[in-house]
Amino acid sequence: MTAKKIYLTEDEMPRQWYNILADIKMNPPLGPDGNPVGPDALSAIFPMNLIEQEVSSQRWIDIPEEVLGVLKIWRPSPLVRATALEKALGTPAKIYFKNESVSPPGSHKPNTAIPQAYYNKVAGTKRITTETGAGQWGSALSFACNQFGLECLVFMVRVSFDQKPYRKSMMEAWNGKCLASPTSDTQAGRDALAKDPNTPGSLGIAISEAIEAAVSDKSGSTKYSLGSVLNHVMLHQTIIGLEAKKQFEKIGEYPDIVIGCAGGGSNFAGIAFPYVLDKINGKQIEIYPVEPAACPTLTKAPFVYDHGDTSKYTPLLPMHSLGHAFVPPPFHAGGLRYHGMAPTVSQLAVEGLITPKSVTQLQAYKAGVILTRTEGIIPAPETNHALACVIDEANKAKEEGKEKVILFNWSGHGLIDLSAYDRYFAGELKDFELTDAEMEESEKIFASHPKPQMLKSR
Amino acid sequence: MTAKKIYLTEDEMPRQWYNILADIKMNPPLGPDGNPVGPDALSAIFPMNLIEQEVSSQRWIDIPEEVLGVLKIWRPSPLVRATALEKALGTPAKIYFKNESVSPPGSHKPNTAIPQAYYNKVAGTKRITTETGAGQWGSALSFACNQFGLECLVFMVRVSFDQKPYRKSMMEAWNGKCLASPTSDTQAGRDALAKDPNTPGSLGIAISEAIEAAVSDKSGSTKYSLGSVLNHVMLHQTIIGLEAKKQFEKIGEYPDIVIGCAGGGSNFAGIAFPYVLDKINGKQIEIYPVEPAACPTLTKAPFVYDHGDTSKYTPLLPMHSLGHAFVPPPFHAGGLRYHGMAPTVSQLAVEGLITPKSVTQLQAYKAGVILTRTEGIIPAPETNHALACVIDEANKAKEEGKEKVILFNWSGHGLIDLSAYDRYFAGELKDFELTDAEMEESEKIFASHPKPQMLKSR
Repeated sequence: MTAKKIYLTEDEMPRQWYNILADIKMNPPLGPDGNPVGPDALSAIFPMNLIEQEVSSQRWIDIPEEVLGVLKIWRPSPLVRATALEKALGTPAKIYFKNESVSPPGSHKPNTAIPQAYYNKVAGTKRITTETGAGQWGSALSFACNQFGLECLVFMVRVSFDQKPYRKSMMEAWNGKCLASPTSDTQAGRDALAKDPNTPGSLGIAISEAIEAAVSDKSGSTKYSLGSVLNHVMLHQTIIGLEAKKQFEKIGEYPDIVIGCAGGGSNFAGIAFPYVLDKINGKQIEIYPVEPAACPTLTKAPFVYDHGDTSKYTPLLPMHSLGHAFVPPPFHAGGLRYHGMAPTVSQLAVEGLITPKSVTQLQAYKAGVILTRTEGIIPAPETNHALACVIDEANKAKEEGKEKVILFNWSGHGLIDLSAYDRYFAGELKDFELTDAEMEESEKIFASHPKPQMLKSR
Repeated sequence: MTAKKIYLTEDEMPRQWYNILADIKMNPPLGPDGNPVGPDALSAIFPMNLIEQEVSSQRWIDIPEEVLGVLKIWRPSPLVRATALEKALGTPAKIYFKNESVSPPGSHKPNTAIPQAYYNKVAGTKRITTETGAGQWGSALSFACNQFGLECLVFMVRVSFDQKPYRKSMMEAWNGKCLASPTSDTQAGRDALAKDPNTPGSLGIAISEAIEAAVSDKSGSTKYSLGSVLNHVMLHQTIIGLEAKKQFEKIGEYPDIVIGCAGGGSNFAGIAFPYVLDKINGKQIEIYPVEPAACPTLTKAPFVYDHGDTSKYTPLLPMHSLGHAFVPPPFHAGGLRYHGMAPTVSQLAVEGLITPKSVTQLQAYKAGVILTRTEGIIPAPETNHALACVIDEANKAKEEGKEKVILFNWSGHGLIDLSAYDRYFAGELKDFELTDAEMEESEKIFASHPKPQMLKSR
């Protein structure tokens, strides 16, 4: 019988991450004065060893043994042949996925949370602060900090805090502290509460609180951590695609199409960047980031200089953005509700090395239910966006009669998001699509920003 | 670096289950007249192929290819070295666990749900009914029925239905139907509602409803399914221990102690029975089922003939029992809140082949938090009982300075049970222990029942 899952042994795990900065040209981040910011500008919130990774152009970066030791709790993750899905679709395509839902917090997020906690530990950090929307990142960072004996303080957007009590429970199980943001512990929080005592909170406010909590610890032993967007986050996630390549080698296959959902960009980057390297080196391969039609950064928004956060704490980053003031509509895939896209992923789209797609919420959930009822795993709402694209491509392969090999990233499971499935089954979910007028309104925000160059790496 | 996880390839999966009925003598089940019941008595609720397994004394029973095909969604499960726990305890013991939490429903339950659905499918069943308390079994059976295209109807005790909405969502995601019991769809349900329209329900009522829903379908195409206690359930679970043995062979180890939590007995049987066979054949090994001190069937209750269900639908089974009318106190480990113990597990205790242990709820949760913060996986409340015993044994090994090899079964994860952890952290959980007076009261129920023989298999 054909193997359903292709494993690597722990000895076969990649020993180095792939750094795409070695292979593409990037516009530099800019400070408030419009000049490029150097590493020092970030040192108030990140430890220097992570900042060095953020700006490194070394192609391969060693994964420390201590990091590998913790990743082995669940890695290498299996590469799975979606045989039941293939059969249900009647497609000649061979469909494979990396199952990143097998980590203790249930998503790909700990792939970067673990090294971030490790490098902070090495740098002498005692406590890490962060924000979380839906809760995947906050729970992953709590898990990681616990593994390295660091304190973790998570500011969780109040509306999610109230709606998803299990996420807070997970963080506490791993000894993390989870506060409903806005809090009265920070100036940013107090300001928000003064403006509206009943505010549901926002990711923008939560980021402000987390950064303030880090920089206001004058001992310097508190740092801040981000779960997506930044270069070093993408770097850490490449272990997904590097494992997949080794697994495909074992069975003598190579994908024709690589697919990942894309919010900030990290799970997509994780599976895709090692294949982008092959594409740069001449390999014929299609690579699709899939985003929500309700938050279409790559498919609709311009490539601009914009802030990574609503409160404009971050430098201006070169990226596809709907504007840092953009508030995505309330669709059920919290991890994809981000106004921008990682600068590296954005640059690849600019260069045509990847081909962005978008799907609506209802398309995504429909696909998620198909996968639940074939492959058996209940997908995270974010993953559902990739799945809708996978099913489209498998159906195209059927129409064309082609035995294509499709690889996608199963970024997480949906066990903590089951209430969204309830709403889908009850017919309560609806689609949101941005109008051109809304897009134009959103774009006004960039009028005063510098323009990035349309660089071509080759 | 030492491997953290020991895998088998899918080709190395066991091809046969181990049937302990080949190696021990058992008292037969008795009908209402006190005479042994034959297979036919069960044919109204179970298909004949499963009844044949229930009474078979063939030592090795082939696992059908179709069953293996679905088990491969998550099996073989990893054997994991609990290195972080060992380090935290400073024990010379080597601690290993089978991680059964990796199945899509998150527990060992689908190991029997899958073959039960398969054999029903083969026998022409269209729909399977069952009851569920905490929801692990109902979700596992929904998952399994969905894989084989069967309908699944789950009667979930109302109080759990209301407290654990995510379990119902899981069942529906897998196309199962989950009703809060008592319903007005069955006579048993209507009777219960007539008596008390606001009843929280009970497992006894839910069983009655599920059996009634099966037998009242006069077409014969609806059958009933049970997730523990019965011989064929224990049989299907032995794949856990059989895999573990192969995994230990790969690293040249053999356990000194095998530990599993025990409610109805199925996850314990799964890991333990293959090692019981070795013990019968002369191997030196300790085998510990661990039950809640608040529901101490093996450690305190007598070995008697009793009904498997509150409503006395089942034959009289030879088992350790607190009495079929016993209502366990409301501790947070729904899967262990059962008045009896599987007849096979009970017989092994009678013969001294296994050594029952009990732990309190607070001991269990304390251990669960230690594992969460070392090995990283949040355990199910049931699993926590095994963990408390594991930590005890590891500490003993430390005192004795012995490098013992301990194996335990991580029966499930706790992601759907996080509210119980919240209550533990808030100091709201308390211990329950049965008094001798309560035990005596409970035992009066057996006065009129026949007495099982104290058989010795060797």
